[in-house]
Amino acid sequence: MLPREPFSGLLTDLYELTMAAGYVQNRFNARATFELFVRHLPPRRNYLVAAGLEQAIDFLENVRFSSEDVSYLRALPFFRHVRSEFFDYLSRFQFTGDVWALPEGTIFFPGEPLLRVTAPIAEAQLVETSLLSIVHFQTLIASKAARVTTAAAGRPVVEFGSRRAHGVEAGVLAARAAFVGGCQGTSNTFAGRRFGIPVYGTQAHSWIMAHEDEAEAFRDFLDVFPEQSTLLVDTYDVRAAMEKIIALGRKPAGVRLDSGDILADSKWVRKRLDQAGWKEVQIFASGELDEDRIEVLLRSSAQIDAFGVGTALSTSSDSPNVGVIYKLVEVGLGDTVRSAAKFSQEKITYPGRKQVFRFAGKDGKVSGDVIGLDTESFPGGEPLLVPVMRDGKQIEATDEEAPLARIQRVRNRCLADRARMTERILVLRVAEPPFPVRYSKQLEQLHDQVRQTVAKTARIG
Amino acid sequence: MLPREPFSGLLTDLYELTMAAGYVQNRFNARATFELFVRHLPPRRNYLVAAGLEQAIDFLENVRFSSEDVSYLRALPFFRHVRSEFFDYLSRFQFTGDVWALPEGTIFFPGEPLLRVTAPIAEAQLVETSLLSIVHFQTLIASKAARVTTAAAGRPVVEFGSRRAHGVEAGVLAARAAFVGGCQGTSNTFAGRRFGIPVYGTQAHSWIMAHEDEAEAFRDFLDVFPEQSTLLVDTYDVRAAMEKIIALGRKPAGVRLDSGDILADSKWVRKRLDQAGWKEVQIFASGELDEDRIEVLLRSSAQIDAFGVGTALSTSSDSPNVGVIYKLVEVGLGDTVRSAAKFSQEKITYPGRKQVFRFAGKDGKVSGDVIGLDTESFPGGEPLLVPVMRDGKQIEATDEEAPLARIQRVRNRCLADRARMTERILVLRVAEPPFPVRYSKQLEQLHDQVRQTVAKTARIG
Repeated sequence: MLPREPFSGLLTDLYELTMAAGYVQNRFNARATFELFVRHLPPRRNYLVAAGLEQAIDFLENVRFSSEDVSYLRALPFFRHVRSEFFDYLSRFQFTGDVWALPEGTIFFPGEPLLRVTAPIAEAQLVETSLLSIVHFQTLIASKAARVTTAAAGRPVVEFGSRRAHGVEAGVLAARAAFVGGCQGTSNTFAGRRFGIPVYGTQAHSWIMAHEDEAEAFRDFLDVFPEQSTLLVDTYDVRAAMEKIIALGRKPAGVRLDSGDILADSKWVRKRLDQAGWKEVQIFASGELDEDRIEVLLRSSAQIDAFGVGTALSTSSDSPNVGVIYKLVEVGLGDTVRSAAKFSQEKITYPGRKQVFRFAGKDGKVSGDVIGLDTESFPGGEPLLVPVMRDGKQIEATDEEAPLARIQRVRNRCLADRARMTERILVLRVAEPPFPVRYSKQLEQLHDQVRQTVAKTARIG
Repeated sequence: MLPREPFSGLLTDLYELTMAAGYVQNRFNARATFELFVRHLPPRRNYLVAAGLEQAIDFLENVRFSSEDVSYLRALPFFRHVRSEFFDYLSRFQFTGDVWALPEGTIFFPGEPLLRVTAPIAEAQLVETSLLSIVHFQTLIASKAARVTTAAAGRPVVEFGSRRAHGVEAGVLAARAAFVGGCQGTSNTFAGRRFGIPVYGTQAHSWIMAHEDEAEAFRDFLDVFPEQSTLLVDTYDVRAAMEKIIALGRKPAGVRLDSGDILADSKWVRKRLDQAGWKEVQIFASGELDEDRIEVLLRSSAQIDAFGVGTALSTSSDSPNVGVIYKLVEVGLGDTVRSAAKFSQEKITYPGRKQVFRFAGKDGKVSGDVIGLDTESFPGGEPLLVPVMRDGKQIEATDEEAPLARIQRVRNRCLADRARMTERILVLRVAEPPFPVRYSKQLEQLHDQVRQTVAKTARIG
């Protein structure tokens, strides 16, 4: 289910392989730079959170073509005229490029590269599809988690969405990305073991239903988990269930509301618990929650101490994809380096290797970003992209760091980045005006220059 | 990336493990039946397509707890009071239950079980989360693919969405599910090798951009793939690109439009190709397409021979999740068997082991379904659920069948099921009235009976 070494090189769109065959067979030995970025913000998002870099690097270090992979391709009718040279190339394939990236947890905006790959062109091309899907998914979920935890206004949010994720792997990686974006933990136990993320769990309706008597179901659970039980009280009737628990006389750690009128029930339950002298028993709410419902509940003074958010988080349900793209920005052939850009209608890209510079105002809050060339520098502009791979090897091996420390470092970066954003950008509604990002003068000049060259070659040919 | 044997038993929500601990430690040795079904249709869907059963069975046959898995759990503070007996149970864990299921490719409706699991209660509980996510995802995508291919009205649709899928595994499984739902193939090469699905690929904008001259880019590609090249013509200017290709005098298999005014361009390109005497050169369209855009394009007489659909398919973008649930419907303790149901507000479930019976009219079209008890039978009602696992083993091992034959069998079932549905259900807009599904009298009676029993125990305790 989770990526295991080695990754198959076939985890890519076929056209990456046809192009790679073309580059190899035509001896097109260019060194190319591609940038991975987002063209537009998804609806209702004011910013995005970079995530998935750890898995992307893992993929780049471990992608290989097995002999079965190569035989499969060789047998495709489409590859009939491709010479052996290409299949030999695949058998020896390893990613040998350099990668710069935004550290995971960094808040970023459209046009800003999350990842910049410089490698022999066929290599850079072959890794495109998997790089995109790896970075796409976790960025999507971390960005959603930032919204959900913003709405929860300091109350813990636990990611509960594995069951409706897009498969088993997506469930595990959603748990990781949700933690990066600010969640307190997850119910996905594998993610707990693999990444050190705190895990949380209560009980399901089936536990109550399996017992003939609801009170017995509560008591039997408290027998096994005397200290940290959170009891589910909405299987039949919330108030009747609460009376049974109080009558048992054994204080649970919390109770969970999962359906019905959570606002009214939370208020009633809080009062009843306090009356019973159980002020420290927490109320946990779940059941088709998202940032909007959480905001409304809290604005209405719901008595909720923590939230479990499932499907909305694990699928980013209101906006289940981000328009990530991976575009050629520079081609070096021998001694000449040429900047590249695309000028299809509505799909224009900027040429050249880029860096993102972030500026802060006197209040310490971020005031704006400039996307410039990587050769530029700006006083007070903090460059965000850092080198992460050189010659196909990870630069700073973090293998010795404990998984929990590593992922907490990433989560803390995200929380720190959020703290530096102004309120206007952090709220759930669309920011007006949006966060200011501009291209540097040098980049605009390069863009115009490439456009003129392209206009010449494209029309006149 | 893809599920590999064995699956970790930790691929589950923590509460499944707390409940399993409770069942084991309290010697609650019930045999339970759970049903996996959908409560409501997602917005704009008139039916769903069952998919993912092959991966679900693979999971059930291979889920295990490694010694590291068990050590991890044992060390969680939450499990401090759980006795060794439970950890021993996990170390020996194998799924030993019976499973009935709708064959993959079957069209189904809310309330109808896709999967019915009967097993010792702790086992049935532990597999819940992964079963849901596996079946959820492929069902979601196969259902979307049925809509997209309906819109394409017989023209081939190729799934192109790996790059924006929810991770690498999701990309591969989306390709599989899209094929089940009616697509012609995929660009995901790994899915091609693994499942035998036909793969398709053209060239990317980067190929054109990497060459200084667009005509040279086309020629170099035709050199490597002389017979089946589909050339991308929208990098700079569609009409200029077409002239270059025609001037080369080497006929490609097709050309691809990926941006801009696809409707107008397709008409212009068709005319130009025909003028050049290249009537058999196909026009392939892609670029943020979905069922609605395809319907509009074809209604406007776009000259398109085949479609590539990406993100909309691989994320089911307009509705990225289905409310699949897995509910306890029966508990057997010793000689007594008790039916179970849930009566939380808005979340009512029906008790008892169910079967789905499908009825056809004189025209051969399906006229309606009845959800009954599995002990019932109805003249003319075709039972849809079939046994797929007994005592934890797959009943009909299909290992000897070639992957392509197996997946084509499933796809053919879906196409046959679609052919049996009336037009009202197949169209893209919401069917009015919806497809008729009713519960049998016996099931309604059992439901009332359980409700009365529950009302007694829940209130009076």
